[in-house]
Amino acid sequence: MNGAESLVRTLVAGGVDVCFANPGTSEMHFVAALDRVEGMRCVLGLFEGVVTGAADGYFRMKGTPASTLLHLGPGLANGLANLHNAKKARSGIVNIVGEHATYHVALNAPLTSDIEGVARPMSEWVKTSPSSKTIAADGALAIEAARRAPGHVATLILPADTAWNPAEEVVTPQSPEPRRKVDPETVVAAAKALTPGDGAMLLLGGVALRERALNLAGRIAAKTGARLSAESQNARIERGAGRVQVSRIPYPVDQALAYLKGVRKIILVGSRAPVAFFAYPGKPSELTPEGCEVIKLAAVDEDLEGALEALATELGALSTPPVDVAPSRRSPPQSGRPTPDGIAHVLGGLIPERAIVVDESVSTGRGFHPNTGSAPPHDWLNNAGGSIGYGMPVAIGAAIAAPDRKVIALEGDGSAMYTVQSLWTMARENLNIAVLILANRSYQILKGELANVGAGNPGRKAMDMLNIDRPDIDWVAMARGHGVEASRAHDLEELTRELGRAIAHRGPYLVELVI
Amino acid sequence: MNGAESLVRTLVAGGVDVCFANPGTSEMHFVAALDRVEGMRCVLGLFEGVVTGAADGYFRMKGTPASTLLHLGPGLANGLANLHNAKKARSGIVNIVGEHATYHVALNAPLTSDIEGVARPMSEWVKTSPSSKTIAADGALAIEAARRAPGHVATLILPADTAWNPAEEVVTPQSPEPRRKVDPETVVAAAKALTPGDGAMLLLGGVALRERALNLAGRIAAKTGARLSAESQNARIERGAGRVQVSRIPYPVDQALAYLKGVRKIILVGSRAPVAFFAYPGKPSELTPEGCEVIKLAAVDEDLEGALEALATELGALSTPPVDVAPSRRSPPQSGRPTPDGIAHVLGGLIPERAIVVDESVSTGRGFHPNTGSAPPHDWLNNAGGSIGYGMPVAIGAAIAAPDRKVIALEGDGSAMYTVQSLWTMARENLNIAVLILANRSYQILKGELANVGAGNPGRKAMDMLNIDRPDIDWVAMARGHGVEASRAHDLEELTRELGRAIAHRGPYLVELVI
Repeated sequence: MNGAESLVRTLVAGGVDVCFANPGTSEMHFVAALDRVEGMRCVLGLFEGVVTGAADGYFRMKGTPASTLLHLGPGLANGLANLHNAKKARSGIVNIVGEHATYHVALNAPLTSDIEGVARPMSEWVKTSPSSKTIAADGALAIEAARRAPGHVATLILPADTAWNPAEEVVTPQSPEPRRKVDPETVVAAAKALTPGDGAMLLLGGVALRERALNLAGRIAAKTGARLSAESQNARIERGAGRVQVSRIPYPVDQALAYLKGVRKIILVGSRAPVAFFAYPGKPSELTPEGCEVIKLAAVDEDLEGALEALATELGALSTPPVDVAPSRRSPPQSGRPTPDGIAHVLGGLIPERAIVVDESVSTGRGFHPNTGSAPPHDWLNNAGGSIGYGMPVAIGAAIAAPDRKVIALEGDGSAMYTVQSLWTMARENLNIAVLILANRSYQILKGELANVGAGNPGRKAMDMLNIDRPDIDWVAMARGHGVEASRAHDLEELTRELGRAIAHRGPYLVELVI
Repeated sequence: MNGAESLVRTLVAGGVDVCFANPGTSEMHFVAALDRVEGMRCVLGLFEGVVTGAADGYFRMKGTPASTLLHLGPGLANGLANLHNAKKARSGIVNIVGEHATYHVALNAPLTSDIEGVARPMSEWVKTSPSSKTIAADGALAIEAARRAPGHVATLILPADTAWNPAEEVVTPQSPEPRRKVDPETVVAAAKALTPGDGAMLLLGGVALRERALNLAGRIAAKTGARLSAESQNARIERGAGRVQVSRIPYPVDQALAYLKGVRKIILVGSRAPVAFFAYPGKPSELTPEGCEVIKLAAVDEDLEGALEALATELGALSTPPVDVAPSRRSPPQSGRPTPDGIAHVLGGLIPERAIVVDESVSTGRGFHPNTGSAPPHDWLNNAGGSIGYGMPVAIGAAIAAPDRKVIALEGDGSAMYTVQSLWTMARENLNIAVLILANRSYQILKGELANVGAGNPGRKAMDMLNIDRPDIDWVAMARGHGVEASRAHDLEELTRELGRAIAHRGPYLVELVI
């Protein structure tokens, strides 16, 4: 057994049994070990952003980390933007990066770079394993780091000689510690703050947005009159008919300020006090209203459901019927121009039970939540890190984590381009993903932002940087180029028909909606 | 005038008049300034690897830096692999990265990251400009750093408030220092080492591979019997009929060792002593033969042509006719299966005068040099950093730097996928680029590497990581999806016809050669 094999066996022993990969020469021993070790599924991406984003999506749905396999510093660099998104979503990933043989690094061959330096900004744990005798133990450490609540990006760097030299060991990582319980005084303090009529808001983040935690939050809200809210960007919300609905803090600063107006106490449950996504001249970056008290019930790595249960118990709200339970209601048939509300209604009419909606709809989809909230129970995933190109890769990981569920990826055309190679992996793995491209032929969001930052009326040269027309991207051809079936819709009737076809299709299917 | 405008004006004053861009909210003031400042051409890429690779290609052909415009840490991350390649090619780039407003960074909004940390591994100069009053001076410093011989990646980070606050200044950067002359003793020592019959090799790198320097090297070789060689990966070689031909150290270690066998003195002219691209078990990483003396005539940042001229003068070789001048000869017509040699002959028959060949043909193209060396004079660009996905972006930059010349991008199908979005920019700018996709449906090079590293016979799971079939990528559909005309060839007759069409076409045209 060589070091690579001892690492692969350690991964499998630690429950890391999916590897999203784009390997090169320095990773060939790892690749060869895959043939000798049972129980590791390896999924190829043709660009590393696909690989890391898929690992993010996998964790969001499975709750345990997948591994990646990346080629040296530049391969890691290509995966870095989606590692950033994963880190902000608090997804656990065992991010494995090949390195030159230890004795080769100092020679500064063409592909040599400072891999640890590249890894550090987007990783919470980084280690280069110095030899084949240490790689199993280091692999176990990486698994432990990735699994530690709420989930972390752990980058393990694997020099080629660490991979090819002899090893004997397989190390089983320690089981993750259970999430820390919130102490009783904190619960009592939060309960005291929730005086009815006192303008309190429960601000929910992380796993406080899962069904049972939301149900408890709904009971607390019913008992105390507190408002419920999620943060703006959330790794995963369990929503739909029968579940407690929760709105998100709006992205635009003015809307966020209006939304938070009158809030006098914010109770943080796995969340942070709200801040603006970007700074804008003359507008605040911190969105907590003047004089509003911020009270932490539980940090994102603590036992959020337990904290809400303790709080509900303290308030005598455990049997209070929750507020804002979504009714079960299908949107009516839609026709005409593809307005954002109309598109949301089409989704509200089509989202199947247990669907996973990966939302990278950006400007078009900003208001999709209200009209989709009464569809059958489903999950809704946002981009927690804001680096576009997250959606299709995350859809891949979600589909592999939950093969019996339909994944719907809502994609702005500008966003989808960053990791367009995702389509190929969807085809190779025959993943059950419906991709809806919202093709407005522009970075639409930036047209608003240009005004928001006070940059004035754009002229021709500025507009050329905001429009992605000339030429229009032909998404049906793009999909077919990658081996994915596709069709085009121009209005809401066609969208209903084509998206319905995509959702019914077993395997990937792309619909381009021309907006 | 705001900070953004003072920066754009400083760039133009410093001769940086092309900006490859993929901006976001934090860069909107820079984008708006483009409308107010004459003389800056802005080229949009739909992925940041296109942007940075284009800046690399621009410098290689123009010799002066372009700027980029990237969006925060993740946007920089997406451009990092091609910055790595640019750094290894020693291309000068003013790499501009937007940042949150200075007061916004500490709030850790979703897109916040350690931008300097991301930049540092692939940059030789990094600075965050703290205010609108400093940005012009910092912009001038970045230009000076980028232009300093032989060329450097200079990353200038532009916080949003640095961009939008008032500024008054435009700073003209200092002209670059001329390249340092090699001192006379070094020349004399090199001349002494070049005793005829003593197994000497002139190893040429950097700008020693331009026509006049090669001509001088050819005279020295004629006078002394020294061999001429280029390094394995070269940013740009001027070659073709009438020019001194120079072979490259082969990529495979065994071939490289055979190539260098018997060399007893290596004279470095802008090059480094040869090292293997990768380490392989049981094979050396340093390729200089045992007992061979390594003598530095000139470092890569020194005056290489001047050093060769001084050496030729010292040797009395200035009027000696040079060795290895390529004859003018077109390859004969080819037919049948698309073998590597046959493809090279087709290229040898078609490369037009002053063409710029960007070579990312990887395994298929390893032997393209001999059969193309007698085509009309042209430039040949290699990937100096080894991170695949460099070719099409570099072709974009080359085409913009030299609009009157035909660019031919030779692309492995695996390589082309990493920055496939390049096709769209080629279409938007109507760039004069013929793209040849060598579609062998695999990471062919890795099949050899798997054996080279001793990883044994691949099984099904390993082969799934090396083949990129299932599904085959339809490159004609891919090109059309991006707005580029395309056709397919299956044999050498079809290749001759279709590549001829692509070369004659004014604008981008893609040919998929099924291998």
